[in-house]
Amino acid sequence: MKKQEKLALVESALEDFYGDQQFASSLRESVLYSIHAGGKRIRPFLLLEVLEALQVTIKPAHAQVAAALEMIHTGSLIHDDLPAMDDDDYRRGRLTNHKKFGEAMAILAGDALFLDPYALIAQADLPSQIKVDLIANLSLASGSLGMVAGQVLDMEGEHQHLSLEELQTIHANKTGKLLAYPFQAAAIIAELAPEIQVKLKTVGELIGLAFQVRDDVLDVTASFEEIGKTPQKDLQAEKSTYPALLGLEEAIAFCNQTLDQANAKLEEITQQVPFETESIVKVVESLRINA
Amino acid sequence: MKKQEKLALVESALEDFYGDQQFASSLRESVLYSIHAGGKRIRPFLLLEVLEALQVTIKPAHAQVAAALEMIHTGSLIHDDLPAMDDDDYRRGRLTNHKKFGEAMAILAGDALFLDPYALIAQADLPSQIKVDLIANLSLASGSLGMVAGQVLDMEGEHQHLSLEELQTIHANKTGKLLAYPFQAAAIIAELAPEIQVKLKTVGELIGLAFQVRDDVLDVTASFEEIGKTPQKDLQAEKSTYPALLGLEEAIAFCNQTLDQANAKLEEITQQVPFETESIVKVVESLRINA
Repeated sequence: MKKQEKLALVESALEDFYGDQQFASSLRESVLYSIHAGGKRIRPFLLLEVLEALQVTIKPAHAQVAAALEMIHTGSLIHDDLPAMDDDDYRRGRLTNHKKFGEAMAILAGDALFLDPYALIAQADLPSQIKVDLIANLSLASGSLGMVAGQVLDMEGEHQHLSLEELQTIHANKTGKLLAYPFQAAAIIAELAPEIQVKLKTVGELIGLAFQVRDDVLDVTASFEEIGKTPQKDLQAEKSTYPALLGLEEAIAFCNQTLDQANAKLEEITQQVPFETESIVKVVESLRINA
Repeated sequence: MKKQEKLALVESALEDFYGDQQFASSLRESVLYSIHAGGKRIRPFLLLEVLEALQVTIKPAHAQVAAALEMIHTGSLIHDDLPAMDDDDYRRGRLTNHKKFGEAMAILAGDALFLDPYALIAQADLPSQIKVDLIANLSLASGSLGMVAGQVLDMEGEHQHLSLEELQTIHANKTGKLLAYPFQAAAIIAELAPEIQVKLKTVGELIGLAFQVRDDVLDVTASFEEIGKTPQKDLQAEKSTYPALLGLEEAIAFCNQTLDQANAKLEEITQQVPFETESIVKVVESLRINA
């Protein structure tokens, strides 16, 4: 299935859930504003991509699980932008949800996007035991043992010098667990043995880590071009990032080594189950930084 | 099982989920502050009470479902109190969550309480199909088709003259669905026939409605004693409440008639399944207003 077809299935799942429903229309407007804010749908796409690599025939129920994941991601962006949090007026060149609809509505839109996705999964056409596993892991990845804990740790670490380990813990929770969920969810849906599920989840975690390191590196190299001075000097004063902690070259090497580990783990899984890794390796390689 | 034993099971379920876990300790502190803020545990108690009336032997898994419901209720109170919402400094005589921990932490504590409960139910020792049903209905009762929609409608209706029907729609969503959930959840756990599940849910909805009408009536009669003038005059100018729309006497009659309907529905169910309604009728009667 082509990428566009996969993304279309995800859009349908979101549209079916929010488009037709008779509920507070201003809430729906606010929710859909952020759902359609131009996100790249990285997480839902990865879920369907990994499923297909595992030779599972993709069906609408899988897109509903992918859409549920995107809903939680979107809710977290709305709340992150709030005045009490990052206080951002724009995201992707458009007004943030609270600038457009007011703070109260933005809080409630985020709340809805946290509470709704579980019904979407629970009502999907999949075996009950699989749905229970998917729900348990999505909840654990996003709540007080996952994303929300990561946001708290990030907030508290803002004006402190963090160790590499502390930085990794923050990212593993704040962004890593929802980036690993597509791999975890695909493994659950494909009913892989628990041992292989763990390996596939590890691939997701490694990709999530590389994603964050790359993001930090690109931030630095971008600002280097903009401000026209040596980034290393700024880095000393900056808040904790991988380049700040490791130096730029070392951070690039760390990103690429993490991707090597992801590839090695993928290769390992292909020895155990039918797994067409080509498209996943392509995703991995797209994150590699040329030194 | 005595009321205290039931409540102790619910406290254990909450404590087991939040007490032992290694996660951001400040987040846990903020979450537990509101969990232990002196709420009466009406919803979880009702769930276990109805289960027992249906002759189901209560076990810890049922208390976990009840605790999940209380978590969502608590999260909604934290977000309701935020400056952008009702802007309350105190709840039950204690500082509200954001006054104690700051707005950012209060937003995140509420988020955690919306995201976590689904893992708690998913991991409970119950059959998968039952857990899927419980999760679907809790999500629908709380998200953009339930509680959150009700909050939006309530917010939008604040400075408007509402019809009785509009007022009922607001309350049915804002508070009614989470008050009906204990009945719905007990019916799911007891594996009652769908037709009887609907009847039991209706009992919960009627009790939820009476609860709200009673609340409005008590507000008025309290303020009558305080301000020492005829409430009817004030009511004309007040925001929409049942006494404002119906008059005080009529509102009292409406509350009591609604309770009569709940009792009649309970009686109907006893004709179809073993159901010891005594303790539920006691709850119903505790809401009756003596004219």
